[in-house]
Amino acid sequence: MAIRIGIAGYGNLGRGVECAIKHNPDMELAAVFTRRNPESVQILTPGAKVYSIEEAQAMKDSIDVMILCGGSATDLPVQTPEFARSFHVIDSFDTHAHIPQHFQAVDEAAKESGHVGIISVGWDPGMFSLNRLYANAILPGGSDYTFWGKGVSQGHSDAIRRVEGVKDARQYTIPVESALEAVRSGRNPQLTTRQKHTRECFVVAEEGADLERIEKEIVTMPNYFADYDTTVHFITQEELDRDHKGIPHGGFVIRTGKTGWEDENSHVIEYSLKLDSNPEFTSSVLVAYARAAYRLGQEGQSGCKTVFDIAPAYLSPLSGEELRKNLL
Amino acid sequence: MAIRIGIAGYGNLGRGVECAIKHNPDMELAAVFTRRNPESVQILTPGAKVYSIEEAQAMKDSIDVMILCGGSATDLPVQTPEFARSFHVIDSFDTHAHIPQHFQAVDEAAKESGHVGIISVGWDPGMFSLNRLYANAILPGGSDYTFWGKGVSQGHSDAIRRVEGVKDARQYTIPVESALEAVRSGRNPQLTTRQKHTRECFVVAEEGADLERIEKEIVTMPNYFADYDTTVHFITQEELDRDHKGIPHGGFVIRTGKTGWEDENSHVIEYSLKLDSNPEFTSSVLVAYARAAYRLGQEGQSGCKTVFDIAPAYLSPLSGEELRKNLL
Repeated sequence: MAIRIGIAGYGNLGRGVECAIKHNPDMELAAVFTRRNPESVQILTPGAKVYSIEEAQAMKDSIDVMILCGGSATDLPVQTPEFARSFHVIDSFDTHAHIPQHFQAVDEAAKESGHVGIISVGWDPGMFSLNRLYANAILPGGSDYTFWGKGVSQGHSDAIRRVEGVKDARQYTIPVESALEAVRSGRNPQLTTRQKHTRECFVVAEEGADLERIEKEIVTMPNYFADYDTTVHFITQEELDRDHKGIPHGGFVIRTGKTGWEDENSHVIEYSLKLDSNPEFTSSVLVAYARAAYRLGQEGQSGCKTVFDIAPAYLSPLSGEELRKNLL
Repeated sequence: MAIRIGIAGYGNLGRGVECAIKHNPDMELAAVFTRRNPESVQILTPGAKVYSIEEAQAMKDSIDVMILCGGSATDLPVQTPEFARSFHVIDSFDTHAHIPQHFQAVDEAAKESGHVGIISVGWDPGMFSLNRLYANAILPGGSDYTFWGKGVSQGHSDAIRRVEGVKDARQYTIPVESALEAVRSGRNPQLTTRQKHTRECFVVAEEGADLERIEKEIVTMPNYFADYDTTVHFITQEELDRDHKGIPHGGFVIRTGKTGWEDENSHVIEYSLKLDSNPEFTSSVLVAYARAAYRLGQEGQSGCKTVFDIAPAYLSPLSGEELRKNLL
């Protein structure tokens, strides 16, 4: 019998989860839950239904794992512990400073109800974190580097849109190639924020807006742009819609370190992602961990976990023998 | 108290384990075991002792994890199950076709004695296998590519040395850059053996040997070279010793796959290693998994496992809270 997945929240991430379920024959979409009027939400899966999020609780017996697709700022801190009282849950909580308290809240709820909750799943946090952990365990005493991009930063795009006179905007974070090369060489460089990434902005201004002022406000914006070399391009709404509608992203996790009695040998471990669709890739990771949550639940485990706590075999539909034969 | 590690077999790998223990303050070298005369073996760690491998059994109470550093052909199939009767064990068994029977033999011995055995640890099998598994779970229906090198192949170097008139040799396996680029582009190429790797050989011939015949015998050698574009360079023993004494290696694991309702988005996941010393890196992975074996043993687990079965957190000396705070 297929693992029955519920999706809570139907934005880019929720739709990505729906698509990922289609790619995994051992799973099926049980239902989508929304805060909007369910009748206004069109989903892709034939036969699957959309319900109001208030109805989720009543469906606890027909859903194995609930994947929470809301935002980290306000949705997940409330939803993940709440849903963990009735379901195994997966979320992509990514507010780093609040992970300890989120972990604790989900852990308490999940342990009390006998469910498994896996938080902060995706690629960063998620696959990048895993690669940092593995590389740190193998090369203690080395150096970690994480680069992001080339990709769209939603937060930075939103920040530009809040500038007066800006109608629409898209911001790309771009790793500096020479910095990547310096890291890969094993030279162990100390890199400033400015040396690691540049920021490129495509901005649609309102008619008659003062472009010079907009550009200045963007490049000097504290936290978001002031510490970076930022380029601003003014384009039309048509150009933005035509050339910048995708949500690509990616990045690099690199660890360099030494081995040998006198540290005489250098090693470089590199993990990288090149993603056409940030939300769809994140969703694909969420769905793989939903499989793990279901299986851990079947074994009687409970409580909050992260990607660090899950043995890789739980993510795959293959058996132990098949994995050893085909992938080891 | 530090985790007490025993090393069985003191070649390049055993010495690498010794060096890796030095880099991990939560571990200590308890003893080295050898089939040679123990008095003939000089080790690096002050205060640590070398024993005959027959004495290992008697020291079961002073060693927590035994790391087996013998070869996959004849040593490990016998040693790993045997030692699993007295110790938690780690090996780097890499004869792919025999993994199922090796797994079973170690599993039976380890379960009977209540120990943990982790087999096929290293980078391939090992870290490369893990990356194949993670990427397969995230992008079902995609394509896997593994490239090796640039690096020294011991097996191919040995094969050249068996050619009549060859005094010494070193063979490098080199991934074809254009093939790597084709894979990274997501074009999903079908690649032949010849298209993926080239082989470069540095050969010291005996005085007066027929160089033309040697070259021909090498490049046409079935299994080893016939299916590759192979280059042969004749050099002096001095040049070989000076320029080719290292044992570098590395490689690339790439998975490409699609997401989206109509497979409209492409993704590339890439993991790569660039290693100055193949045996020292392998040893560093073995030691990280020794930590995992020890901890699993403390929890009362037993039986044979592979890297697929070990939750990543077990590899790190950091606590769950520290990992979530620093690496997630």
